[in-house]
Amino acid sequence: MKSDAEIREAVLGRWNSLTKPPRSLGRLEELVLQYALARGTEMPAIERKAMYIFCGDHGVTSEGVSAYPSEVTAQMVLNFLSGGAAVSVLCRHYGIEPVIVDAGVAGDPAPGVVNRKIAGGTRNFCTGPAMTRAEAEAAIEAGRALAAEAAGRFDVAGTGEMGIGNTTSASALLCAFARIPASEATGRGAGLDDDGIRRKADAIERALALHRPDPGDPVGVLASLGGFEIAMMAGFHLGSAAHRLPVVVDGFISGAAAMAALTIDPGIRPFLFFSHLSAERGHARLLEHARAEPILDLEMRLGEGSAAAIAIGLIETALALYRDMATFSSACISGRKEE
Amino acid sequence: MKSDAEIREAVLGRWNSLTKPPRSLGRLEELVLQYALARGTEMPAIERKAMYIFCGDHGVTSEGVSAYPSEVTAQMVLNFLSGGAAVSVLCRHYGIEPVIVDAGVAGDPAPGVVNRKIAGGTRNFCTGPAMTRAEAEAAIEAGRALAAEAAGRFDVAGTGEMGIGNTTSASALLCAFARIPASEATGRGAGLDDDGIRRKADAIERALALHRPDPGDPVGVLASLGGFEIAMMAGFHLGSAAHRLPVVVDGFISGAAAMAALTIDPGIRPFLFFSHLSAERGHARLLEHARAEPILDLEMRLGEGSAAAIAIGLIETALALYRDMATFSSACISGRKEE
Repeated sequence: MKSDAEIREAVLGRWNSLTKPPRSLGRLEELVLQYALARGTEMPAIERKAMYIFCGDHGVTSEGVSAYPSEVTAQMVLNFLSGGAAVSVLCRHYGIEPVIVDAGVAGDPAPGVVNRKIAGGTRNFCTGPAMTRAEAEAAIEAGRALAAEAAGRFDVAGTGEMGIGNTTSASALLCAFARIPASEATGRGAGLDDDGIRRKADAIERALALHRPDPGDPVGVLASLGGFEIAMMAGFHLGSAAHRLPVVVDGFISGAAAMAALTIDPGIRPFLFFSHLSAERGHARLLEHARAEPILDLEMRLGEGSAAAIAIGLIETALALYRDMATFSSACISGRKEE
Repeated sequence: MKSDAEIREAVLGRWNSLTKPPRSLGRLEELVLQYALARGTEMPAIERKAMYIFCGDHGVTSEGVSAYPSEVTAQMVLNFLSGGAAVSVLCRHYGIEPVIVDAGVAGDPAPGVVNRKIAGGTRNFCTGPAMTRAEAEAAIEAGRALAAEAAGRFDVAGTGEMGIGNTTSASALLCAFARIPASEATGRGAGLDDDGIRRKADAIERALALHRPDPGDPVGVLASLGGFEIAMMAGFHLGSAAHRLPVVVDGFISGAAAMAALTIDPGIRPFLFFSHLSAERGHARLLEHARAEPILDLEMRLGEGSAAAIAIGLIETALALYRDMATFSSACISGRKEE
C-alpha cells in the first residue's frame, strides 16, 4: 500500500495533468484528494454507495420541544421503507442503497429495518440521564459493527437520521462539547415557533444544570443527553475510519454524532466529509467546533441524510472528472506560457 | 395557460404537502418554483438538457493578459468535440447534450461545431473597438436564433464558454456596466501571476479610457469590449427568455453576458439561474450588480459550463424530490401539532 505522501503526490500530479488550469476545479479537487487518501489508492472507485439512516425516539419530547408528535418517527421509518421520503427519492436518484437502522424507535421494529434497537426511545434528559452508560456503550458498539459490515459492501456511506426531538438532543450535545449556552445552540428544528424555541432552550439549560456534562467523557455526555441514533452514528463514524470507509455526514444531528466521535478519537477526521451547512441554528457553531468545511450551502434543514446524498453525488461527479478528463498531452493542448 | 400566481400557489402547495417540514429543502424548493414559473406549468419536466458552449478568440491577448497562448481556444474546441474537457465529462455524467458554437475562433471552424463565426477573433480593444456595432448586433442575433432553436429541442440549457483572453473582456464589461475601476474587477483568470494581473488591469484601464463605454448603450459596450462569444451568449439569454427556456448561467464570463442581456432587457431575469460563485475575482461583484443569488460555491474557476452542468444536475435533483416524494396523506404521517 502506498503512503499518504505518495497518494497525495500522485493525485495532485494527475489533477495538474488534466486539461484545465491548475486547481480550477476548487473543492472538487480537494474532495477527490481526501477520498483517495481515505481509500488508500490514487485511483479510487465510487460505485457501491450506501445511506445509513439511524432512527430513534426521544423522551425529551414530553417537554414540548418539537413541532411534530413522537409517532412521526415510526411513521417516517415506514416512509423510508416504502420509498416516499426525501432521502428515499435522493437515494434512487443517485444510485445509493438506503439502510434503515432502528436504533431506538418506540414500538416493534418495522419489517425491513436493520434492528439494532437499544430501547424504545430515550428517557427525558430533563429529569435524568437519557440512557444508561451501558446503553450508550452498546449503541456505540452496534454502530462500530455496522460500519465494519458496511466497509465490506460499500465504497462510501452517508450518515443520516430520523427522530422527533433529536435536534434538542443534538443542541444539548453541542452545548456540552463546545461549552456554550443553550441560547446559542437552539434552533427551530422541524419548525418550532418562538415560544417553542424558548421551551426547548429552557429544557436544554435544565438538562445541562442537572447533568453537568464533562466533554472529557464523551460516552458519559452521550448517555446523559442522548439519543440512541446519535450514539450509534458516533460509533458508525468511529468504525468507518477503522475500516477506511469514507463517511459523508449529513447535517446538524449527524454532525453532533461526528463531534462526539471526533472527541472520542480525533484521528477519524480524514474519513469524514461534511456535506452542508444547515439552516438549523447551531450548525455553523458545530462545524466551527469540529473545524469542518461544509461542501454545500443550500439552506436545507431536513436531515434524514438528504444533504449527504447530494454531497455523495458531488463526490462522484468530482471522481468522474478526475478519472475521465483528457490530459494536456493526450489532447495535444499547449501548456502555460513561461512567465 | 395558468397565471404565474396560480403556478406559484400550486407549487408551494405541493411542496408543503410532501413529507418534510415546510421549506426544509431550502434553495431546492426555490429552484423548482423558479423553474416551474419559467416553464409555465406547475409540474414541469427536465429531460432534454443542453449545454451551449460559445467559443471565441480575443485580440486583447496581444497585451499579455492570459497565462495561456491563444491557440488553446481552438485546441479546447477539439477537446470539447472529442469529449475530453471537464464540461464534456460533466455533460456525460448528467446526461446533458453539449452544443459547441464557434462564435469567433481563429481559423477554420472545426468539423462538428455549430458554425456561427462572426470573425476569427476580436480586435485588441486597447487600440480600438473589439468589433463593429454591426458585428455585435450579428452576434446577438445569432444567439437569439440559437435560443429559439434550443427551446424547441430542450427543457433547459446551460451557457458556458471558451476563449483565451475572455476574463479580460468580462472584467472590462463589469467595469463598464457596474462603473467600477479595473482594480476591483480583475482577477487571475486561468492563472496569471501578480505581474500578469497588473498588465491585465492596465489594459482594461486603457480600454475604458479609450472607449468611455456608456452602460445605457449595452450593444455599444459589447462592441467596444467584446467578445464574440460573450455577445452571442447575451443574445442566447435574451432569446431563451422569449421562448420560456430556462437558462443556467455558468460563471464569470457567462455572467458578464447575462449582465449585458439584463441591461438590454431586465424582464429576462425569471429565466436565468446563476449556477455558482466563482473564485475569479470580480464575480462576487458581478453577481451583486446583477442581484443574482448563486446556487453553489465550490471555489471553481474553470468556465466552459462546468458549474452550470453541476447546477443543472441539482435542479434535476430538486425536481425529482418535488415530483416523487410521498405526501403526508399518502404516507399516513401525522401533521404538525397545533400551536
